[in-house]
Amino acid sequence: MKLSFPLVAIGLEVSMIVLFGFFVKYDTEQNAVQQQYSTNATKADKFLELHPLFQDVHVMILVGFGFLMTFLKKYGFSSVGINLLIAALGLQWGTFIQGIVHNKGQTIYIGIKNIINADFSTATVLISFGAVLGKISPVQMLIMTILEIAVFAGNEYVVGEIFQASDIGASMTIHAFGAYFGLAVAGVLYQSGLRRQNEKEESVYHSDLFAMIGTLFLWIFWPSFNSAIAETTEQQYVAIVNTYFSLVACVLTAYAFSSLVGKRGRLDMVHIQNATLAGGVAVGTCADMKIHPYGAMIIGSIAGIVSVLGFKFLTPCLTDKLRIHDTCGVHNLHGLPGVIGGLASIVAIVLGASKASTMLMQAAALGSSLGTAIVGGLITGLILRFIVCVQPSMEFFFDDSAYWEVPKREEGDNE
Amino acid sequence: MKLSFPLVAIGLEVSMIVLFGFFVKYDTEQNAVQQQYSTNATKADKFLELHPLFQDVHVMILVGFGFLMTFLKKYGFSSVGINLLIAALGLQWGTFIQGIVHNKGQTIYIGIKNIINADFSTATVLISFGAVLGKISPVQMLIMTILEIAVFAGNEYVVGEIFQASDIGASMTIHAFGAYFGLAVAGVLYQSGLRRQNEKEESVYHSDLFAMIGTLFLWIFWPSFNSAIAETTEQQYVAIVNTYFSLVACVLTAYAFSSLVGKRGRLDMVHIQNATLAGGVAVGTCADMKIHPYGAMIIGSIAGIVSVLGFKFLTPCLTDKLRIHDTCGVHNLHGLPGVIGGLASIVAIVLGASKASTMLMQAAALGSSLGTAIVGGLITGLILRFIVCVQPSMEFFFDDSAYWEVPKREEGDNE
Amino acid sequence: MKLSFPLVAIGLEVSMIVLFGFFVKYDTEQNAVQQQYSTNATKADKFLELHPLFQDVHVMILVGFGFLMTFLKKYGFSSVGINLLIAALGLQWGTFIQGIVHNKGQTIYIGIKNIINADFSTATVLISFGAVLGKISPVQMLIMTILEIAVFAGNEYVVGEIFQASDIGASMTIHAFGAYFGLAVAGVLYQSGLRRQNEKEESVYHSDLFAMIGTLFLWIFWPSFNSAIAETTEQQYVAIVNTYFSLVACVLTAYAFSSLVGKRGRLDMVHIQNATLAGGVAVGTCADMKIHPYGAMIIGSIAGIVSVLGFKFLTPCLTDKLRIHDTCGVHNLHGLPGVIGGLASIVAIVLGASKASTMLMQAAALGSSLGTAIVGGLITGLILRFIVCVQPSMEFFFDDSAYWEVPKREEGDNE
Repeated sequence: MKLSFPLVAIGLEVSMIVLFGFFVKYDTEQNAVQQQYSTNATKADKFLELHPLFQDVHVMILVGFGFLMTFLKKYGFSSVGINLLIAALGLQWGTFIQGIVHNKGQTIYIGIKNIINADFSTATVLISFGAVLGKISPVQMLIMTILEIAVFAGNEYVVGEIFQASDIGASMTIHAFGAYFGLAVAGVLYQSGLRRQNEKEESVYHSDLFAMIGTLFLWIFWPSFNSAIAETTEQQYVAIVNTYFSLVACVLTAYAFSSLVGKRGRLDMVHIQNATLAGGVAVGTCADMKIHPYGAMIIGSIAGIVSVLGFKFLTPCLTDKLRIHDTCGVHNLHGLPGVIGGLASIVAIVLGASKASTMLMQAAALGSSLGTAIVGGLITGLILRFIVCVQPSMEFFFDDSAYWEVPKREEGDNE
Repeated sequence: MKLSFPLVAIGLEVSMIVLFGFFVKYDTEQNAVQQQYSTNATKADKFLELHPLFQDVHVMILVGFGFLMTFLKKYGFSSVGINLLIAALGLQWGTFIQGIVHNKGQTIYIGIKNIINADFSTATVLISFGAVLGKISPVQMLIMTILEIAVFAGNEYVVGEIFQASDIGASMTIHAFGAYFGLAVAGVLYQSGLRRQNEKEESVYHSDLFAMIGTLFLWIFWPSFNSAIAETTEQQYVAIVNTYFSLVACVLTAYAFSSLVGKRGRLDMVHIQNATLAGGVAVGTCADMKIHPYGAMIIGSIAGIVSVLGFKFLTPCLTDKLRIHDTCGVHNLHGLPGVIGGLASIVAIVLGASKASTMLMQAAALGSSLGTAIVGGLITGLILRFIVCVQPSMEFFFDDSAYWEVPKREEGDNE
Repeated sequence: MKLSFPLVAIGLEVSMIVLFGFFVKYDTEQNAVQQQYSTNATKADKFLELHPLFQDVHVMILVGFGFLMTFLKKYGFSSVGINLLIAALGLQWGTFIQGIVHNKGQTIYIGIKNIINADFSTATVLISFGAVLGKISPVQMLIMTILEIAVFAGNEYVVGEIFQASDIGASMTIHAFGAYFGLAVAGVLYQSGLRRQNEKEESVYHSDLFAMIGTLFLWIFWPSFNSAIAETTEQQYVAIVNTYFSLVACVLTAYAFSSLVGKRGRLDMVHIQNATLAGGVAVGTCADMKIHPYGAMIIGSIAGIVSVLGFKFLTPCLTDKLRIHDTCGVHNLHGLPGVIGGLASIVAIVLGASKASTMLMQAAALGSSLGTAIVGGLITGLILRFIVCVQPSMEFFFDDSAYWEVPKREEGDNE
């Protein structure tokens, strides 16, 4: 870490400044001939109109994802700290790379959609971060951020521009993509010691409460996430209502099944922190479709159940059988619910809830997202393992003291 | 807990889905003949216009109430977790039952007011939850949520539609109602052991800091709560300004009196967490009346004083004399300040600050809210105690381990 | 503390009520002749238009500043609690005094700008609070709030009205001013024991995580802070974009330099909590100037570096050589980046990024802010030390138990 991390970080920031110097301008500098309909004042007005929704999403990225991962007892600094670092890099790189892809290499004019999309591309990396949490170094995370967002932008372009598929809340392009990308990386970086019970991989009482800060802010603002890039205000309204009702239903089933599969009916904090959010993921793709509030509630209910069962039965199996260790269980919060989201959109289109896309294009979008994620994740994993030679050894896993000056745990502690 | 909780939760969610399937539609599906003035686009615009205020309220419900109750050292999971569960059920049931009451049984079209009102009905239950915190089971809370919101919707209809009383910030219909309903339930469920000092009923240093997260978000967003359903933007403006100045004044007097009644002038965290919010409650009913900023400050100052004195002198008395054990002291934060709010509105009307209601109707509204709450709470308490036979015994009070898998308190802990 | 604190607090609140009774009215009561263009409805609309930005700033003041200072292991109650107390007083006094200064003693009509400005004047005091944190009593803080906001309002008037300087994000008038005012007070109140390592001046693991709640909410909402009082929506848009990109760049350089100067490349939580925000401070003055996104990133990058180096090398030196003990390191987060902000605005004007002010006036504004702050701080410090005779002795420094009833640290603790 001594020199590689600061040099990589500085190198990346200098590169960003240079790229922005050449390619990125204010929206109000845009050639008025190209966009005659829109004066600078109205451009700024549009920006400010969506700004509250953007802020909600921004809280989700920094506070939501950041604190959700603080559940590990000795890895809170890294969870919330590296989350911020990834976000800061991802917001710059995502602005650039998505702008370049969508504008075919021309100047990027920063509007509200650009920075919302940058937050979205960052969310994707943060989901993958959950799969490898505690097992890779900050330098590796910086490299992974650059690689993953590039692949993400490519897939998002294919899904949106070529397939013209619907994915307003990005169940497929962000959630499923981020989860399977992260799982592929985790698979490549697997070390056999991870199969053993690791005492550091547990929570303590207050670390679980810190994680609930993340859960609640994600839960509260998820409707903004799923509606932020809707084209009309009517679609925005529908997306907010659907997400709201999917989430509330999801909470009931997640609690019920957490108790059902728990010892003596006890609830498990891991389920409550994560599975209560699966409804937001699963309703994403068809959030702006007229699936009716009760339809959203059915999707949310199923997502809550699948997510809890995934944590209980699938995650241990993934580690033992497939040698894929998923620290935060992103497969259960983002992977499976993301796939459910894609499938739900197909059902919704069959039932006539939307004419904006077709069954076939939705299936292609789901396939593309999963395929690109897995291939991209495998290649990224190989690069991180064999080219970026700073893979920490297992004794430093799940432990802030590898990268941070760590104070005492508690007053009076002699550690 | 083994089976009753999951079965009740699943049964309730299935019921909600069925009810929503029959009764609830998007606002944009509403018959255009009935509401010719309003196209789908303008309906969605109105929704989005109030959406930021709604989000503020939503943060209060989930983060505010949830974390405010985490002050108990061993009951943080339940406080923030059961808070989320109650909210998720209450938001669905509140949407339905309030819609049915106001629309006289016809189809409910989901607008922003519907989901704000659902948050309000949920707030009422969460206030009552504070009175019984740590003493009742999750199943009991689910049943209480259903019963209380039904009674709440009835009283709110009587106050708003029949008496035509003013209660914009709901000092009477939410705060006083929620507090006295909860106290009535707590009275019925009273166990004599509660009179003894219970070591689990205390806080630890960091649990008090978690609670401050709740306090601050409630404090910050209270102006949105009191103004969210105002009819005109001018009333909304007045409600925000009045609430803001009532709250700031309340903080000064709450601090002053906490020090005055404390040992050697020391501040008490319970007062700071709660009494600093009493100004938001007490100014609620007359928030949209032209009581002048200094009038709001007088109301807030009084509320801060009364609330601290209530915590210091009244709460112990309630337990000892009236056999009513109020875990969070909701009587001091919501009960007394709610009554002050009702009385303040009568004074304000006498002084000519509003012509929207009359003294008599305000008095009737206060009486109805208190009466309905107490009777409804007593009946609910009896149902919870004798019909829902899952009353936990005292050894499980104030202890997450009754319902949750609980990790170690802290690294190195051998508990 | 026994009587002085409650009496001062009550006396101040009564004074505020009286002042508000004479001077403060609703904006909708304003004489229509003076402002014919604006009906009550449009005034309220304008209020609500900026209300979401105001709420963001409000979250920064209460949650952001409050939790940022909870890093001290035994001073969390005071950090977040006294922060709330100062804010409550400052919001009232700031509304009054800024209104009086700008309106030349006439009636103050409460618009959104008034309460945003009150939050700003409060921010200034909270920055100074960081310099003296743990070393002065609540009574002293109340007096300091009154004095500092009065001086602040004077300087802000000189900078804005007389020099007509640009300082949209208030790098000079809030950040540099607040920091140097606080440092001057800290210098006057210096006690030689502060030079020794004080075990209570450290953090524990979870107190550092609480502080990150503050950091993140400050980081997320900083663009709203820097744009809230912009005159046109276009300037608002530019200010948001510039602040956003300055902050993301600042994070990368702060992490890089924290690792560079750390033992074995380790990151230091103090840097991450504070230096990652320096980009928001430094871009403040020229936030609404057309400095291009890459220009903002350069400013942010420099601020992140300077801030980390300040924490590492300058803060210890200030204590040892200048006898100025800066508890939170506000010199590194607000002082130096604030000066950078002023200098950056001069460079920006030279380069033609704005015609709203001149080099000379910007330099005068910076000089005035620094000079007023230092002189005002010295006088305030002398008043606090020699007239308000309640200076706590060093054994009570950095310890909540001087002013609070403090519960056990943790379950099972016998302390």
